[in-house]
Amino acid sequence: MPYTPAEQANLELVRGLFDDVLNPMDSGAVDRFIAPGYIQHNPNVETGREPLKAFLDTIKALNPHGVHDVKRMFADGDHVIVHYHVRRWPDDAGWAVIDIFRIEDGLIAEHWDVAQDVVTGGPNVNGMF
Amino acid sequence: MPYTPAEQANLELVRGLFDDVLNPMDSGAVDRFIAPGYIQHNPNVETGREPLKAFLDTIKALNPHGVHDVKRMFADGDHVIVHYHVRRWPDDAGWAVIDIFRIEDGLIAEHWDVAQDVVTGGPNVNGMF
Repeated sequence: MPYTPAEQANLELVRGLFDDVLNPMDSGAVDRFIAPGYIQHNPNVETGREPLKAFLDTIKALNPHGVHDVKRMFADGDHVIVHYHVRRWPDDAGWAVIDIFRIEDGLIAEHWDVAQDVVTGGPNVNGMF
Repeated sequence: MPYTPAEQANLELVRGLFDDVLNPMDSGAVDRFIAPGYIQHNPNVETGREPLKAFLDTIKALNPHGVHDVKRMFADGDHVIVHYHVRRWPDDAGWAVIDIFRIEDGLIAEHWDVAQDVVTGGPNVNGMF
């Protein structure tokens, strides 16, 4: 299914967030991706762009080698959805996470997420991804 | 952004899953929505259509008045994404859940999800939805 040029640009913006901000945990790159009036719905972080930077710095200090391993991405109009696996250290079972981003004027304006510990050894043999 | 006819049909199929299966917890309606070779990635349920029916019956016995309150839905080609709030009983803080469904030949062929307890009283005042 072909994306519109706007959807393609939104996918590239979010891909850039993972490559340039979340994987290197580089709070200095946040302003290239996140709108000044950023509306945060992650319950553990205050809303806004500056609290996000502080949160990234805290996480980087705790887990400097964490990875955000993107499994699949989707676009629908001004929203992008990402399903990924966070591993905080090399043998971490990690978290399964799905993010929803709303893009406005070329920057991420709003964000929702849900995170769950990866279950190992349960009745399902397919894995969470 | 207009959906293609196929995306519109996929959204309606998944809306039907919530209305006719998940909210009434009616395992008897599963075959109208779920493919025989259903690939399940929820770690707590065996893969396949029949284990899903048994799981729904178990949940219904535990929480007969649970609700699946859909907050937003997206479509991208053969995938539909749903962000919703599960409340097991009337004053339950509940779970935030995001499902990803892959549709093939008019039925749901594959499913991933992530679920998290709704956080109340954290630093974010926007709520998880």
